[in-house]
Amino acid sequence: MHTEDQIFQLMDEDELSLALINAQYDLRKTQGQKNGKSLIVLVNGIELAGKGEAVKQLREWVDPRYLQVKADQPQVLGEKQTFWQPYTRFIPAQGQIMVLFGNWYSDLLRTTMQTGAIDDAQFNVYLEDMRVFEQDLKNNYVDVIKVWFDLPWKTLQKRLDQIDPSEMQWHKLHGLDWRDKKKYDTVQRLRERFTKDEDWLIIDGEDEKQRDQQFAQHILQALKHCPNHPVRAKGRWKQAKIPELLQHPSQELAKTEEYKAELKKLSPQVAKALRSGPRNVILLFEGMDAAGKGGAIKRIVKKLDPREYEIQTIGAPEKYELNRPYLWRFWNKLQTDDDICIFDRSWYGRVLVERVEGFASPAEWQRAYDEINRFEQSLINHQTVIIKFWLAISQEEQAARFKAREDTPHKRFKITDEDWRNRERWDDYLKAAADMFERTSTEQAPWHIIATDDKNTARVEILKTILKQLQAD
Amino acid sequence: MHTEDQIFQLMDEDELSLALINAQYDLRKTQGQKNGKSLIVLVNGIELAGKGEAVKQLREWVDPRYLQVKADQPQVLGEKQTFWQPYTRFIPAQGQIMVLFGNWYSDLLRTTMQTGAIDDAQFNVYLEDMRVFEQDLKNNYVDVIKVWFDLPWKTLQKRLDQIDPSEMQWHKLHGLDWRDKKKYDTVQRLRERFTKDEDWLIIDGEDEKQRDQQFAQHILQALKHCPNHPVRAKGRWKQAKIPELLQHPSQELAKTEEYKAELKKLSPQVAKALRSGPRNVILLFEGMDAAGKGGAIKRIVKKLDPREYEIQTIGAPEKYELNRPYLWRFWNKLQTDDDICIFDRSWYGRVLVERVEGFASPAEWQRAYDEINRFEQSLINHQTVIIKFWLAISQEEQAARFKAREDTPHKRFKITDEDWRNRERWDDYLKAAADMFERTSTEQAPWHIIATDDKNTARVEILKTILKQLQAD
Repeated sequence: MHTEDQIFQLMDEDELSLALINAQYDLRKTQGQKNGKSLIVLVNGIELAGKGEAVKQLREWVDPRYLQVKADQPQVLGEKQTFWQPYTRFIPAQGQIMVLFGNWYSDLLRTTMQTGAIDDAQFNVYLEDMRVFEQDLKNNYVDVIKVWFDLPWKTLQKRLDQIDPSEMQWHKLHGLDWRDKKKYDTVQRLRERFTKDEDWLIIDGEDEKQRDQQFAQHILQALKHCPNHPVRAKGRWKQAKIPELLQHPSQELAKTEEYKAELKKLSPQVAKALRSGPRNVILLFEGMDAAGKGGAIKRIVKKLDPREYEIQTIGAPEKYELNRPYLWRFWNKLQTDDDICIFDRSWYGRVLVERVEGFASPAEWQRAYDEINRFEQSLINHQTVIIKFWLAISQEEQAARFKAREDTPHKRFKITDEDWRNRERWDDYLKAAADMFERTSTEQAPWHIIATDDKNTARVEILKTILKQLQAD
Repeated sequence: MHTEDQIFQLMDEDELSLALINAQYDLRKTQGQKNGKSLIVLVNGIELAGKGEAVKQLREWVDPRYLQVKADQPQVLGEKQTFWQPYTRFIPAQGQIMVLFGNWYSDLLRTTMQTGAIDDAQFNVYLEDMRVFEQDLKNNYVDVIKVWFDLPWKTLQKRLDQIDPSEMQWHKLHGLDWRDKKKYDTVQRLRERFTKDEDWLIIDGEDEKQRDQQFAQHILQALKHCPNHPVRAKGRWKQAKIPELLQHPSQELAKTEEYKAELKKLSPQVAKALRSGPRNVILLFEGMDAAGKGGAIKRIVKKLDPREYEIQTIGAPEKYELNRPYLWRFWNKLQTDDDICIFDRSWYGRVLVERVEGFASPAEWQRAYDEINRFEQSLINHQTVIIKFWLAISQEEQAARFKAREDTPHKRFKITDEDWRNRERWDDYLKAAADMFERTSTEQAPWHIIATDDKNTARVEILKTILKQLQAD
């Protein structure tokens, strides 16, 4: 929190406007660039403290094409959805400013006040998760500005006396009963637990002019000092040892009859286990080309109806996706209602193909392990099971499958020159996979490495693994 | 409907797969092109008729990267949302195929069966609206394929006897009580009212192999014969007469004190009227540059809190938006919960800037008037008020304002060389505006032309007009 420690001075309004617009244009110039920046502004506060007026005034001082204001329906924080999921669609693209009225802090306050379902310890857990999430946004070039508009009890009551009845009704809809001193005090006590942090600005809502300028000048400073993030990684990278199974993924061949019998037994069991919610299930497949991801997925969904699951086939990101944090396109693919979601490739592309091909800088992919762990843990904490597979194929078997694809007209589309070229980077991919296992195998979401030179054995093993992890949940 | 009139033959599966993939790649090639195509497949039918299996099989025959399957929560058709709004986010981009299980037909059947709120006449109105909406999609290069998977009563009962209990529960969730012969008959009677149309395919779900192939071959035919839409317009264009007010938008000057007094009186009235839902309000502003759209909007929201409204400042479309029907980006900007949405420029860009600058072909912009009328009427039928303003400025006053902007540092961003260049097309824009008034002024959503050489008079007039139209609603 910082208020009085800064000396605050009113600026000439036209000068302030010009400075804001210039700063916006500088931000705008970062669009489409590596590390292009954006700004998200979380607006919170006591009712009638003037946050609405301050935002309206800001919008008049800036170029409104590059500033969006959103006020979404308040969300009740619950067990089935993380606090950030309702807001990911509002994460601004590079060069943009997004002002959010409804946000995770207002949801936390409201849920705590209205449901009584969040105790002190849980409140702290939420706060810590929010700080961490915001740090991840910042690391991905979305700066986060947090402002609390405050108002003393007496002034609030005076303002409530003065407003129009039609307006009054609206304020009631959007908040608590602000006539209740006890509730007011509780809100103050609760919000102090986060506004005490250094990165919150508390604005006194008593003086209108001062209030609007303080808010706008704060945004201006943020625009001017959007942090530059390191492109180079710190220190030396400690390469993990490549698991033996990846080096030599040979395995016994399953007999066809035995395989068929096993499959017949396992398919309905897997379907039943996947269905037995309430929970979300994410199944995720990584591995070299032709390792058998598609075939494995086909066996998993054998006894399911396509209305029960969704398969996400992940390719290169689109341009508008590149304008946002790299996890953003996955955030928006997840649902929250007893969903079965299967990823044919996934967010691990950041530490696999993007690392190996140099699409992500070392600082970016090295940071990504923790970001991914936090992302997955956050989902796991909200009734999601994540089952991760690496399909390990040998270089010889891959070559054989590539050739078979080339010889089969309706499979030829699966193989390109690039696939052959990627084989030259085989060892780099194995190294990347090894680091990924070491850093993102967690207790609740471990990596399962499956040797796939024999497809049938692999498929049975995958089904058994799914059953095991689901039953342990 | 067409079933027996076609001679249907099973194809070799590999050949079918190859043909589908090749057709997909041809579709794919249209991406990013003018008139690039996409395909939406609406899957409906009796439970257990095998629509799930058929879609799953299709997905295995095609290149799955370019085919998405969505099964959204069923929607109850109601008064506050058009039937198409829940589905606009699933409209496929060019080059893509989207298979929709939940869709407007399943919603119509479900709502009719479960709520009893839709009588025969309303059912027909919905059907007609759906046909028209689909035609608009087709005209905008999204082909629509509609399939009904059918199953006789006896076979359905036999299949229900055989399925696994865990599956049974799932089927119940997703449908009616399929053990009830009366309900089965009602569904059949209702669905015949739309499946009798020529563009429906009815597939007999009794024979699995036949069923899957018939479905896939139908998609193949659709991919091969995606219609080519005319780029040239038919016949001669009848230019509307330019209204006198646009030629000479002079007006009396308001006295400053009178203006302020009026504004003070009107602002709270407008705020109150805008708030008095339940309804959505769309305020929409078009006009030459510097005609005063921003200033007018500022006065409208004066007494509102930014959480009560949203301002959409519309610029050139993004690339991913160009890959879809031109109305798509506006569909997704609308909300459905007592929203006040203000458009600073709008979908009328299609018949203004896109017409004048040649971004839309004559066939496209000439078709757009009807499309826009249908779009607006559809919203109006679902508790939305649309208030449309054209701000008419004289060429001399515009030049004066441009110069003033250039002389004011914090307003300079509003003026570019392009703005000066656009003045050369002044008459073309007036002609486009005249045609727009003539063709899109409807009884419930008329155009209001406001002379804006005197800003103050204009602002007062705008506020009065809003009040009048809202009170008439």
